[in-house]
Amino acid sequence: MPELQNYKLTIAYHGAAYRGWQRQPDQPSVQQAIETVLTRLWGSSDRIIIHSAGRTDTGVHAIGQVAHFTAPKKFQKPHALRNALNANLPDEIRIVQAVPVPDDFHSRFSATGKIYHYRIFCREIHDPMELGRSWQMRRTLNLDAMREASDHFLGEHDFASFASNPGYARETTVRTIYDIRFVKKGPQLTLKFHGNGFLYRMVRNLTGALVRVGDGRLTPAEVKTILDTRNRRYAPPPAPAHGLYLVKVCY
Amino acid sequence: MPELQNYKLTIAYHGAAYRGWQRQPDQPSVQQAIETVLTRLWGSSDRIIIHSAGRTDTGVHAIGQVAHFTAPKKFQKPHALRNALNANLPDEIRIVQAVPVPDDFHSRFSATGKIYHYRIFCREIHDPMELGRSWQMRRTLNLDAMREASDHFLGEHDFASFASNPGYARETTVRTIYDIRFVKKGPQLTLKFHGNGFLYRMVRNLTGALVRVGDGRLTPAEVKTILDTRNRRYAPPPAPAHGLYLVKVCY
Repeated sequence: MPELQNYKLTIAYHGAAYRGWQRQPDQPSVQQAIETVLTRLWGSSDRIIIHSAGRTDTGVHAIGQVAHFTAPKKFQKPHALRNALNANLPDEIRIVQAVPVPDDFHSRFSATGKIYHYRIFCREIHDPMELGRSWQMRRTLNLDAMREASDHFLGEHDFASFASNPGYARETTVRTIYDIRFVKKGPQLTLKFHGNGFLYRMVRNLTGALVRVGDGRLTPAEVKTILDTRNRRYAPPPAPAHGLYLVKVCY
Repeated sequence: MPELQNYKLTIAYHGAAYRGWQRQPDQPSVQQAIETVLTRLWGSSDRIIIHSAGRTDTGVHAIGQVAHFTAPKKFQKPHALRNALNANLPDEIRIVQAVPVPDDFHSRFSATGKIYHYRIFCREIHDPMELGRSWQMRRTLNLDAMREASDHFLGEHDFASFASNPGYARETTVRTIYDIRFVKKGPQLTLKFHGNGFLYRMVRNLTGALVRVGDGRLTPAEVKTILDTRNRRYAPPPAPAHGLYLVKVCY
């Protein structure tokens, strides 16, 4: 038996290029694209399976998605695996880092937190260069009201109101949000979420609610009420996928 | 006869969406897309023809392209024409401004200068979000050398060495460059060109030469020699189209 090694990949990808992260029949996915290259690089008869820190939907971008896989030791030189992957992957997917890790490292279960950014672009005339990269809107947003509403999300809460049906059962809908920051730069507004984990579509649902506060359709107090109902029927629709970026998985 | 009015359009577009600015048979172009909507809005039996400040190649983006056209007076309210155009154009093309102008305004012949930006992105691992938006390269560039080389371009020169064959005759290849600025922000380097006009592919050819200086394949003195030959056979290949932005036409 060859000696096995656990590998950690840090991955950036453009969300428009594939039907999301997860491998599925008859649809191109980021997972499938990477697995196909890995399996070829190792000359493996069995498909090499990678496990990510989380799935991302179609359109959602990644700057620092993390995945791990186990395979016979190979590519020992620094950057050799990373470079071999990038030479064979499409431009829409880049391996930022590929390193050997201890056997007990698991991309999802070892994670202690995640950082997501949501990009909004407010201008009367949309910017063609922002297509597929941010949520563009004509209205300007009341940042003070959004900040006040976002305070209700900080700390540990049952976020059932802000979890879309994931298609699979979850043990708990309780999560802790450490921080939500608002960074405004001209027409660009970036919402930076840092939490111990996020439910399915949770960041997009939170952003959807905060934007409704920003344009005056909801009050900060109403957002608190929606959170307290623990029922997603009361929450506004999610923000579109193409404004969302998985920036970092913390370990 | 209805009263005619001259109109000025300021236009932003994503260069990847169309086969460049100029209308041509069997290829979608920005010009054609706008003319089709204008002709429909005016209910005109003859096609309304627009004249731009300059053509842009496939892949070249515009933030402030300018075009004019003459048509019967219509859409008198502020923003009415702009909004009607944007409601009917694809997202890749946005009318930033649409205003009536005096009869003697001509988008090209009235122009006193143009500003182009060229975006370069230097990082060992390419950024998928920069695809089609900048010229990505692994090598880092020597900005001091590039600045020194760019000084040779300032002022009035015969730029024949940096004009690609435009497919049509030019009266003169003499142009004046007022300013070339280098703006570095993390991995992003933006070259900002301001001149009284630019020859076909001139900005991309100048950028191609400056990058060769930045990575050490040419010296600033050699760039001066290339300029002096007035022969484009001596110039390096042009920088790719998708890093180029027509930012402003000055009147």
